[in-house]
Amino acid sequence: MIIRTPLISFNSRIKMKSENQQAFGSYKIRGVLEAIRRADPRVVCKGLAAASAGNMAQAVAYAAKKAGVPCRIYLPNTAPEVKRKVIREWGAELVEMPFEEVWALVKNPSKVVDERLFIHPVHTPGLLEGYGSIADEILSAQPDFDAIVIPFGVGGLTLGVASRMKELKPEVAVYTCEPETAAPLYQSLQAGKLTGVIRTPSFVDAIGTPEVLPEVFSLAREAVQGALVVTLQETRSALKTLCHQYGLRCEGAGAAALAGAIQLQEQSDYKQIACILSGGNIDSNVFDRLVQ
Amino acid sequence: MIIRTPLISFNSRIKMKSENQQAFGSYKIRGVLEAIRRADPRVVCKGLAAASAGNMAQAVAYAAKKAGVPCRIYLPNTAPEVKRKVIREWGAELVEMPFEEVWALVKNPSKVVDERLFIHPVHTPGLLEGYGSIADEILSAQPDFDAIVIPFGVGGLTLGVASRMKELKPEVAVYTCEPETAAPLYQSLQAGKLTGVIRTPSFVDAIGTPEVLPEVFSLAREAVQGALVVTLQETRSALKTLCHQYGLRCEGAGAAALAGAIQLQEQSDYKQIACILSGGNIDSNVFDRLVQ
Repeated sequence: MIIRTPLISFNSRIKMKSENQQAFGSYKIRGVLEAIRRADPRVVCKGLAAASAGNMAQAVAYAAKKAGVPCRIYLPNTAPEVKRKVIREWGAELVEMPFEEVWALVKNPSKVVDERLFIHPVHTPGLLEGYGSIADEILSAQPDFDAIVIPFGVGGLTLGVASRMKELKPEVAVYTCEPETAAPLYQSLQAGKLTGVIRTPSFVDAIGTPEVLPEVFSLAREAVQGALVVTLQETRSALKTLCHQYGLRCEGAGAAALAGAIQLQEQSDYKQIACILSGGNIDSNVFDRLVQ
Repeated sequence: MIIRTPLISFNSRIKMKSENQQAFGSYKIRGVLEAIRRADPRVVCKGLAAASAGNMAQAVAYAAKKAGVPCRIYLPNTAPEVKRKVIREWGAELVEMPFEEVWALVKNPSKVVDERLFIHPVHTPGLLEGYGSIADEILSAQPDFDAIVIPFGVGGLTLGVASRMKELKPEVAVYTCEPETAAPLYQSLQAGKLTGVIRTPSFVDAIGTPEVLPEVFSLAREAVQGALVVTLQETRSALKTLCHQYGLRCEGAGAAALAGAIQLQEQSDYKQIACILSGGNIDSNVFDRLVQ
């Protein structure tokens, strides 16, 4: 069920791992299936739960359906319709709430009163290892990368891929990418300590959180060479190019990774830069407006 | 209906244009739709016809169905079942005959007694221009290629892509690729004159013809830097790697292009080599046996 997505040439220096073409439209399924495989079957039997901006929700709802167990998703009421619709179609129970309340559950999972297996975006065992398979596939397709750009939301993708990359090819420099509308990792690395930010909602809905989880920050500090920040304009421009020149449909977070790679290409001497087009779940009316 | 297929990294020097993921499983649809667009509508109304090893047949059968006109396909009775089945499903009339008789029709289209528009593999106006769009897409994804490897059957893909490449970036060296089971272009270029060969049927069924058409030979001589010949073993090895390491399902001709690119990489100093994975239509039982 996990697709070995192609590593697509953007140009001679940038290659794109097209997780927007992954099953359920984002990389999440890689982690979710591995997490369920490692979980206690007696807990899985009771069902699955997740608090998610949408992509994790889709993967978890599918996995629950496949396992024949119930599923509950805590979802921001601002999540795009495309993400919500697919969840409903798999029979998940949706608990919609303001973004801040979903974030509170991610920040403090003990608040989730649920006997189901709660799939946390970074802490659930197996999840990061599942994401790490992206590093294996990138290097098996092309071994000579010296840098990689990873969209940073809660940090699961970054930590999973960086950790595996360190095992496979430690000299690859890892860069995160956040939108200008909320770049807490960038701010925290600049300040040398955890720093909250005011988050402005935008079409980049899968990354850009109000703050970095403390346990993630200490790991990310070690793993990350630098934190890139991309503007909405750069992201939209990347999204348009991906659509018109490459026939790829990306959501904001995915396009942001390419925008970050383009920045890095201009600022650095890296010879081969990989970037992860993390997802493709975007409402058609939003997409159509952006690519015009 | 034409897919802008991704240009996928094989390694740091070889990139693969994945026409195996094209609509109807091969590059043919690019040419067929352009040929129909340019044809006299009064002829198209009477129907379409083609003599084909299978991939052209699929594209033509689809196009006829879409245009609502009848379709007749002259097909070798050795064509793989997957190619035959799809044609039947679109309501085309199949005329099965020995490979040699189909080849006679390609060699001498005037023998085709058919009031339908006969889509010849190289002569029908528009066809080569349609194939040429592959060169545009390759260079727009990555501009720095210095060589390209193209599977050579009747020669339509080679002439179409080479001709467009000459307009866009004339310094790109064009190499053809033929299987050891029938490599008439290689033999003819070596001999400096048209040379027929004994063709041995194999799983590489979409390339490897008994001879080169004279009009194709004179054009190919100008356009082609060199003719590669790949063994069945090299081709099978490429096919297995594509399946197991890249998640790509290619037919023999497509895998042969990668095998050719690997040869060229070893023999030359080209920095960036593109190759065209021309198609993915292969019977499951054959594929399963080959990838074991």
